Amino acid sequence: MRAIARAITRVENAAGRDLSQLLRELFPHTGRAFVIGVTGSPGTGKSTLVDQLAHHYTNSGVKVGIILVDPTSPFSGGAILGDRVRMQSLFTNPGVFIRSMATRGKLGGLSAAVDEALMILDAANFEILIVETVGVGQDEVDIVKTAHATLVILVPGMGDDIQAFKAGIMEIGDIYVVNKADREGASAVEGELTELLSLATGRKDGWTPPIVQTVATQGKGIAELAEAIQDYRNLTGESGKTKGGIDLFRERIMELLARRLTATILGRIPDEKLDQYAEKMMTRELDPYTIVDHLLRELGFEEEFHG
Amino acid sequence: MRAIARAITRVENAAGRDLSQLLRELFPHTGRAFVIGVTGSPGTGKSTLVDQLAHHYTNSGVKVGIILVDPTSPFSGGAILGDRVRMQSLFTNPGVFIRSMATRGKLGGLSAAVDEALMILDAANFEILIVETVGVGQDEVDIVKTAHATLVILVPGMGDDIQAFKAGIMEIGDIYVVNKADREGASAVEGELTELLSLATGRKDGWTPPIVQTVATQGKGIAELAEAIQDYRNLTGESGKTKGGIDLFRERIMELLARRLTATILGRIPDEKLDQYAEKMMTRELDPYTIVDHLLRELGFEEEFHG
Repeated sequence: MRAIARAITRVENAAGRDLSQLLRELFPHTGRAFVIGVTGSPGTGKSTLVDQLAHHYTNSGVKVGIILVDPTSPFSGGAILGDRVRMQSLFTNPGVFIRSMATRGKLGGLSAAVDEALMILDAANFEILIVETVGVGQDEVDIVKTAHATLVILVPGMGDDIQAFKAGIMEIGDIYVVNKADREGASAVEGELTELLSLATGRKDGWTPPIVQTVATQGKGIAELAEAIQDYRNLTGESGKTKGGIDLFRERIMELLARRLTATILGRIPDEKLDQYAEKMMTRELDPYTIVDHLLRELGFEEEFHG
Repeated sequence: MRAIARAITRVENAAGRDLSQLLRELFPHTGRAFVIGVTGSPGTGKSTLVDQLAHHYTNSGVKVGIILVDPTSPFSGGAILGDRVRMQSLFTNPGVFIRSMATRGKLGGLSAAVDEALMILDAANFEILIVETVGVGQDEVDIVKTAHATLVILVPGMGDDIQAFKAGIMEIGDIYVVNKADREGASAVEGELTELLSLATGRKDGWTPPIVQTVATQGKGIAELAEAIQDYRNLTGESGKTKGGIDLFRERIMELLARRLTATILGRIPDEKLDQYAEKMMTRELDPYTIVDHLLRELGFEEEFHG
């Protein structure tokens, strides 16, 4: 467990620096875990649901790795551990590895760090991996949509603004969960959702996303949810044949290549030079496009790179 | 108005392709607009608030440009226009340019497209620019935190999960808005918020973020909000001296350089080659790090780039 934690910390702190030796050695041991992505807006009880689902798996002897993707505090750079208190029982469950991650700076990116953390857990023989994202941002959607199964969590009575939110995520869900289903309006949400889903064009894999009602705080509906996940897993086959298929691997190669190039090349620019140019941009003396042309020329890149 | 719309469409569709000639010519005419970032989770009434704020400015003859950043529909690639119906009056206000944007694909990035759209509006003499983001994702936070003034919208009674959400955004707000303040719990939210803010360490600019109560649907509190924005604007000085200062310009140069490099270099890799490598990665025959080494060698990059 400690070695895994250390490896993930290295990945998280890398931000462009190279950990390829570690990951290179781990890679052949990956591809066996099944990754479940969980998303939904704040207040939907995602944490409790993930907690219950994880215990459900470990009760049958399955090891579970959990990555919680938290909104970054933009100034302190750390992850926000707000509502994680209610997941404490997971921290003492020996069948569970749990880790909170947040992005630091843009280059490198959160989804790359999450991918690599999942790779580490996969290689360490965790059979079920759960990635939970708070919020509905683009990065968050990108992360959960590459999971083998994506769970979208809704709750009754989220107000009518939820229409926009639902539209944004309705296409990424493989399974929809109406949590807090003992509250008034649960069947109304399920009805609306059924209607929205019926408008969607058929999926390539022939799957019709089911809607599962849960009351996570009481453990209700968790077995049914696990069953729905297993049904989808049976349909799509074991891990490796992910939804994204070959495109997903293409994308990962491109991302890694972009990351390597960017880190190496940006690292060659002296800080003072960058400051000088930034100053000239601030005073509108030079536009950023001309600045980039200058920098590329100074770095020895040929004409083709110029704007 | 049409020329602006066309220019923004070009920026939005660029995704790595080069528009630097257009933007290069516009750049010297930028730096005059004041950019207001507005964020908050779904259901906080952001759209109505932006609508009211925009009318408030145009009533005093100030031209307002608005960029609405919407969650992308990952499959259709388009922006979700969910709750935009309640902003319709803005579309017919001659002093307002309004545009909804969404990201398409990762490379290039949403924040770059938004930056460029703001640049176009700035050059077109819009004095106030409003950027509204739905959700609390990383990209969204990145976008609003580079605004000259960042407004964070909360509402009474968002449930106790809001604690995590508030923590994630409390450091980015220059002004906090408790909207729907006629609802029960408005003073409770304000109290909690005051407490949270009092825990924060002092800001470099000496500003204490105020909390403004509004009922946007009735236009209540909008004048007070505009006043708070003006106070902050007076403190930080006119545009150009943004919160981020020189760092923001450094970051933009680095981003643009990374984008240019990535687009050019990735464009040189034949599709079939990428497919072959992706296939080998899927079968675990080759790890992605080794693949990137191969690709870099094939592209003519020297040893330094290798992992």
